[in-house]
Amino acid sequence: MQNIIGITMGDPSGIGPEIILKSLERLKSYKVLLIGSFEVFERFNKKGIPLIQVDEFNRKFPFKKGVPVISVQNLTMNDFTPAKPSDKSSSAVIRAIETGTKLALQGEIDALATGPINKAALKKIGFKYPGHTEFIKELTNSRQVVMMLAGKKLKVALATTHCAYSKVPQLLNIDDLCKVITITYKSLIEDFGINLPKLACAALNPHAGEDGIFGNEEIKIISPAVEICKNKGMNVSGPFPPDTVYYNAVKGNYDAVISMYHDQGLIPLKLLHFDSGVNVSLGLPIVRTSPDHGVAYDIAHKGEASEKSMLCAIKLANKIALNRKKLGKIWKILT
Amino acid sequence: MQNIIGITMGDPSGIGPEIILKSLERLKSYKVLLIGSFEVFERFNKKGIPLIQVDEFNRKFPFKKGVPVISVQNLTMNDFTPAKPSDKSSSAVIRAIETGTKLALQGEIDALATGPINKAALKKIGFKYPGHTEFIKELTNSRQVVMMLAGKKLKVALATTHCAYSKVPQLLNIDDLCKVITITYKSLIEDFGINLPKLACAALNPHAGEDGIFGNEEIKIISPAVEICKNKGMNVSGPFPPDTVYYNAVKGNYDAVISMYHDQGLIPLKLLHFDSGVNVSLGLPIVRTSPDHGVAYDIAHKGEASEKSMLCAIKLANKIALNRKKLGKIWKILT
Repeated sequence: MQNIIGITMGDPSGIGPEIILKSLERLKSYKVLLIGSFEVFERFNKKGIPLIQVDEFNRKFPFKKGVPVISVQNLTMNDFTPAKPSDKSSSAVIRAIETGTKLALQGEIDALATGPINKAALKKIGFKYPGHTEFIKELTNSRQVVMMLAGKKLKVALATTHCAYSKVPQLLNIDDLCKVITITYKSLIEDFGINLPKLACAALNPHAGEDGIFGNEEIKIISPAVEICKNKGMNVSGPFPPDTVYYNAVKGNYDAVISMYHDQGLIPLKLLHFDSGVNVSLGLPIVRTSPDHGVAYDIAHKGEASEKSMLCAIKLANKIALNRKKLGKIWKILT
Repeated sequence: MQNIIGITMGDPSGIGPEIILKSLERLKSYKVLLIGSFEVFERFNKKGIPLIQVDEFNRKFPFKKGVPVISVQNLTMNDFTPAKPSDKSSSAVIRAIETGTKLALQGEIDALATGPINKAALKKIGFKYPGHTEFIKELTNSRQVVMMLAGKKLKVALATTHCAYSKVPQLLNIDDLCKVITITYKSLIEDFGINLPKLACAALNPHAGEDGIFGNEEIKIISPAVEICKNKGMNVSGPFPPDTVYYNAVKGNYDAVISMYHDQGLIPLKLLHFDSGVNVSLGLPIVRTSPDHGVAYDIAHKGEASEKSMLCAIKLANKIALNRKKLGKIWKILT
């Protein structure tokens, strides 16, 4: 049975709707549900893809007739302008994510790819989450979510995410790191279809600390966490010197690298996959991906935006949904 | 006039002498002085390059007859074993660096490429420097040295070097950062022959701190340092988000990136130039380069070592010496 991928429009005053419609032009064999505003999506529908407004959606939708669109509220192009979201458009952004998550939890769609949002605009109307990931984590009652950035050559999973450089050491601890390793390892099996994953854990300090000369987080936190996970049967190794572990992963020695902080993982990821990296939320009961970029207000509504990362996000959502169906039951390691 | 490149053997129980002789096989048109031990170099001279032992060296050496070799002390292959340096071999390692630096200061050689050393072994006999860079800094009475890693696609200069992750924020300050930017900018002109360099400064925090939300080092230290250097006439910009600045440099937007810490610069550098990166000491009165790897005891004396990085180090030393002669006098910015 073919997957149905739900796609939320993201901030309509950014590039979201444009790159979603551009992606659909290249994904004609996909079953897709658009979530946001029928009028907004139609505005960016340059190639005349048949869009069909629906009030409710279920899996039995006759996709041969066209692409179903749920309007989460009555939002028109007059309600906002390029690069300037309104409270009304921000409200629709939030409702689209809620609707998509609900449909994914109900099994009416198999995966959710989310368009980019402007967190500051959402905050203005009371949105209290740092981003999609935390919002969907709460909507799905999940205990821990891991942010992975995935490209063809390299996958990185982050032990800490958006925080000051200096806060990272105090945020690292054995328990959380074990959870990050476990969720990532599980995801490599279930989501990426890798039977016997090889997972590497990066060190925090240069040269992995050289036996404690340059910092002791390897000795106190990272090595113990790796040992615990090894003892549970996971094929994880490290901590490795950060300046060589990404090279070794790209060479094929590892399927993914656990990065201790945002830039440690994102510098190599973006160097190799600047416009094809996909953000994947690991640890959720639903499949959720997004492009690895923002709303790009500087080129909003100009027709210039590249759909590459959005396209990769939709394709990866589909691939993960397929793998979860096939492989979800193989996972045996106790988490 | 052709340059003369001095090459120190590095730790003879590591791969240094082997990769130096392998490099010479590919650099037959170069004028080279080997510094260390005649017997050790002959041991790795598989292709019968004519080596000529000399007691003293000056520029008038008749290179057509062969490659001159200075034995800094009476060191034979019996004085150490593979992967096991002795006090005697360590002493020769130090004397080779001293001799090379002295000859460079005297102008008898135009540049120095140094073979890899084992710092722990040298420490055992009283060597008090973290590495080559600091030792040569003292031998040449230099005020500040900047460590650059240079590859064809990317050059990074480090604002802080070998220290624990958590120590970096306290080591950053406006004065030192201005010196690092200035020395690097000067080197791009004089050493790399770039007339109007474009230099980028990376941020410390993810997303460059997002206006202080994720750390304030950009506001307090990095932006002020960049402004001071701009006002002196340097074409430097930033601080930029670390996860995109290296990509933009590789695309050609910048000639080099000032990295705030070791792994920030070395992760992208080694990803692109794993075995062709060259370590260059900027800010010295002499030209000094070295391969970007260690003694590789695991493959010592097995004939398996790749000379690629050593070869690149010798070639870059030659290029920098050429550029300094041509371009040293153009530099006008007050340092």
